Amino acid sequence: MKVNLMHGAGGEVMGELLGVLTKFTHNNAGGIGLESLDDGAVIPIGDQKIVFTTDSHVVHPIFFPGGDIGRIAVSGTINDLAMMGGRPIALSCGMVIEEGFEVADLERIVSSMDGALGEVGASIVTGDTKVLEKGSLDGIVINTAGIGVAEKVVRDNGLLPGDVIIASGTIGDHGIAIMAHREGFDLGEQIRSDVAPLWGMVKLALAAGEIHAMKDPTRGGFANAINEMARKSGVHVEIEEEALPIRTNVRSAAAMLGIDPLEVANEGKAIMGVAAEDAEAILAALRSHPYGQDAAVIGRVTEGRDVVMKTKIGGERYIEPPVGDPVPRVC
Amino acid sequence: MKVNLMHGAGGEVMGELLGVLTKFTHNNAGGIGLESLDDGAVIPIGDQKIVFTTDSHVVHPIFFPGGDIGRIAVSGTINDLAMMGGRPIALSCGMVIEEGFEVADLERIVSSMDGALGEVGASIVTGDTKVLEKGSLDGIVINTAGIGVAEKVVRDNGLLPGDVIIASGTIGDHGIAIMAHREGFDLGEQIRSDVAPLWGMVKLALAAGEIHAMKDPTRGGFANAINEMARKSGVHVEIEEEALPIRTNVRSAAAMLGIDPLEVANEGKAIMGVAAEDAEAILAALRSHPYGQDAAVIGRVTEGRDVVMKTKIGGERYIEPPVGDPVPRVC
Repeated sequence: MKVNLMHGAGGEVMGELLGVLTKFTHNNAGGIGLESLDDGAVIPIGDQKIVFTTDSHVVHPIFFPGGDIGRIAVSGTINDLAMMGGRPIALSCGMVIEEGFEVADLERIVSSMDGALGEVGASIVTGDTKVLEKGSLDGIVINTAGIGVAEKVVRDNGLLPGDVIIASGTIGDHGIAIMAHREGFDLGEQIRSDVAPLWGMVKLALAAGEIHAMKDPTRGGFANAINEMARKSGVHVEIEEEALPIRTNVRSAAAMLGIDPLEVANEGKAIMGVAAEDAEAILAALRSHPYGQDAAVIGRVTEGRDVVMKTKIGGERYIEPPVGDPVPRVC
Repeated sequence: MKVNLMHGAGGEVMGELLGVLTKFTHNNAGGIGLESLDDGAVIPIGDQKIVFTTDSHVVHPIFFPGGDIGRIAVSGTINDLAMMGGRPIALSCGMVIEEGFEVADLERIVSSMDGALGEVGASIVTGDTKVLEKGSLDGIVINTAGIGVAEKVVRDNGLLPGDVIIASGTIGDHGIAIMAHREGFDLGEQIRSDVAPLWGMVKLALAAGEIHAMKDPTRGGFANAINEMARKSGVHVEIEEEALPIRTNVRSAAAMLGIDPLEVANEGKAIMGVAAEDAEAILAALRSHPYGQDAAVIGRVTEGRDVVMKTKIGGERYIEPPVGDPVPRVC
């Protein structure tokens, strides 16, 4: 069997490959390990809960409306830490660069990474760089790993019947921005990626009430994230289509591209399941932050399984995890 | 200016690129940060000293005599932690894989990584996988980042006049093994990479005496490592050519290839500067471990600068840091 593009798409097919890549007998350092396939691991060290995560970034093109590979590389890892309740402290940066890459572009990328770090008070403390012969790599790959500290660890599998589902903002912006930009749509310039480091926003939400489960809807989009949360928690989730925040231009471009905006990556959003009595306070906390101003209650959790969307016209349809991401090299 | 292969070679030219890649204003989390360009960073968390490091691995071919990209990916990061005095606890694994890559090869790689982890009691606790279109990447890139805990942090800049320099074993094995294998030398099969996770050996040495400075001679080889140690410590180092352990077949192949074995990567060796009175005990500790059985005292530290080798015939020559590594994609 050979690896194919769908294996890297974050959807159902990826499970095949994950079966191979998680065959480590040494997969846990005493807390939450590889076997849980959460946004990151937790390692107890001394009296601290260290959160640890990694992401390799291959987004193409490297500069796009609303961001660049550097901002994604930092935000992606900070957000994985934040989704576990981890305050981001230190990141590593491993770059693999194709011979002939413009040093001026590297400077832009580094500056963009530095800006994202500054927003949340984290630092790149260690790094590594390799250069490959021209033709051996298309451009640049940036891996970041990150260390955070969690006062209280939040999982993606903690949804409880009665919980309220909150989205921290509009869905689909990043994936559709990349795709529209690649296709050269005129409205491409208007659709901007949402890529952003979310710790500042998440910190406010954590202080405002009880968050039972949290996940950032990156590869595979909202459809994948909410299904993973429901499946791992063993609950049913009901989403109100009317309540789901989607920008008008994202909706239009998605229709033109024939892509479901629920299935494409977001890079600056969180999906949370929160205690019903805390929902208003958490929503207010999210909306008080620039990255959470479009936050909305989008559904609720009951006993059962699967994720269903109540449509605007009064019908119901399943939200399925996508088979694969329709947009390759999106992050 | 464009990035060229020499920029990734670990030698002097790499300094140019590092000037760009270290332009982070957020580069330190309260301990030892990016600015020190040591084998890793140190982050104080609670009452613990967390060591944190990363490496991307692009070795070609991915399977070679003595090891494979998986064993290097785990050993490289464990060794960077060990060089800082850090007991390796948890590693992340970020894989970028070319479409069409054989899943059977992935299984071999994962199994090899798992074996190296088991040798030192560390775990892969979190991971990420991306798949690139055929032609966008030549094979596979594996990034590992690692977290360790140091009782006492060891730096690469702590050499003191009077210290004794110890090599934990033979020099040049990995780089020459890769090169001989690529060139199809008949003796290629006899030269095996030294790739190994060194924490078990380093732990014994740390317990045996005072190690003032430590570094693993990877890219740029022994010549680069010893020069960095001397320059950062502000001392002169004198190496005895006769005392330097180099295998006969490595020496022969290096001569045939026209490569200086002191300038190629090692993946299972440590260079240490130790207090003279502890040298015998540390040497004995190293030799008691399978990976340190060829350990030798190879020189000493005095006041001054630069690194000089006293040759077998009674002469002296400078050991210069290599301009670039003569073997691309060696790790």
